[in-house]
Amino acid sequence: MKQLLIASTSTLHSGGYLEYILDALPLHFKNANEIIFIPFARPSGISHDDYTKKAAEAFKKINIKVKGLHEFDNPKEAIKNAKGIFTGGGNTFVLVKALYKFDIIETLKTAINSGTPYLGTSAGSNICGLTMCTTNDMPIVYPPSFKTLGLVPFNINPHYLDPDPTSKHMGETRETRIKEFHQFNTQPVVGLREGSWIEVKGASIQLKGALQARIFEYNNEPYEIETGTYLNELK
Amino acid sequence: MKQLLIASTSTLHSGGYLEYILDALPLHFKNANEIIFIPFARPSGISHDDYTKKAAEAFKKINIKVKGLHEFDNPKEAIKNAKGIFTGGGNTFVLVKALYKFDIIETLKTAINSGTPYLGTSAGSNICGLTMCTTNDMPIVYPPSFKTLGLVPFNINPHYLDPDPTSKHMGETRETRIKEFHQFNTQPVVGLREGSWIEVKGASIQLKGALQARIFEYNNEPYEIETGTYLNELK
Repeated sequence: MKQLLIASTSTLHSGGYLEYILDALPLHFKNANEIIFIPFARPSGISHDDYTKKAAEAFKKINIKVKGLHEFDNPKEAIKNAKGIFTGGGNTFVLVKALYKFDIIETLKTAINSGTPYLGTSAGSNICGLTMCTTNDMPIVYPPSFKTLGLVPFNINPHYLDPDPTSKHMGETRETRIKEFHQFNTQPVVGLREGSWIEVKGASIQLKGALQARIFEYNNEPYEIETGTYLNELK
Repeated sequence: MKQLLIASTSTLHSGGYLEYILDALPLHFKNANEIIFIPFARPSGISHDDYTKKAAEAFKKINIKVKGLHEFDNPKEAIKNAKGIFTGGGNTFVLVKALYKFDIIETLKTAINSGTPYLGTSAGSNICGLTMCTTNDMPIVYPPSFKTLGLVPFNINPHYLDPDPTSKHMGETRETRIKEFHQFNTQPVVGLREGSWIEVKGASIQLKGALQARIFEYNNEPYEIETGTYLNELK
């Protein structure tokens, strides 16, 4: 059974790395004493080793070992054999370019669709959608495609941010950007606020965390959903 | 002689379309009674016709006619014969995809390098840099390359925004994003605040408008420059 936690962010302003979601992880990774971390999104250009260390420190609190995917000679085999997979945030363009470079898009899809529990935060959540076209990241490298894993039948916008009515800045609000996305694309977009995550269990897709999420559908006005809402019909 | 105005934004919060920069345009386009407008960035998905109308209304105030590039059967010939060119803002990915689709990257470069006066705002300024890799826009479509016109030997970050020290949002600040860019790229980036523009006259490159700009160089700490500063050595 497919099992995913697709989280808006790794870290809340008031907390430590993965702290707000840590309680959900022992159950999610219940059959894993070791998981594989995909460090390729490299926030602030951090090295794969350093980023993996950071993830390992958080998972140590729940007695799960973490090994970086970059430590394996054969990343495809590593993913096939993984008991759990976590992809951290950073830059989605950098992440997706690396996934294509190591040719592991299909391997990841197959493993996760076959039941390997997956956790994504931020960029690691973006790639769960149909495309990475609703990332907030700067396009600092050129990936060979914007197509991502399609583990859910919509796109994710992590770190969703409500418009600031007092702002004098003329850059587009997040809502404007997603509406522009729908001038050229038809799949729904889930705007996940920091502190929210989506839990996928087989065919069930549910909003978790304390906050509402904002749903953008093609040719519809955006609307709010409460935590606990099922998104099984959103496609 | 190369003549460009590379503006951070078309519109300030307090003003109308092109209002803050309108005084500079009659001199810039002094030999043009008609210019060509490139409407391909389509802000909020506006049609080419409607966007061209908006540009035409602003230029009417200084007695310059505007014709949209989409109105010409042969866009290459239109650019070659243009007395002036203005590329408006919107989504840089949408704009760059269209420039490649119509195969006019080289035609634009040649015309502007040969002296056709050029005005860019926002996305239309992004494309003046070496690449579009420092755009703030959402990647809603996939262009065949991130390489742009290279009319200046650096990249532009329009709508440059200073970090908000009171923010609790965990998305990256603009400065963090540009520093990440420099983990993978070496060209300088000019962070142009709304109200600033760069004036290029032959080999002279000068910051204009009321504000400072922020310069990001590879392996250096970012620094501020005053308006009036020449950027001739920045590369």
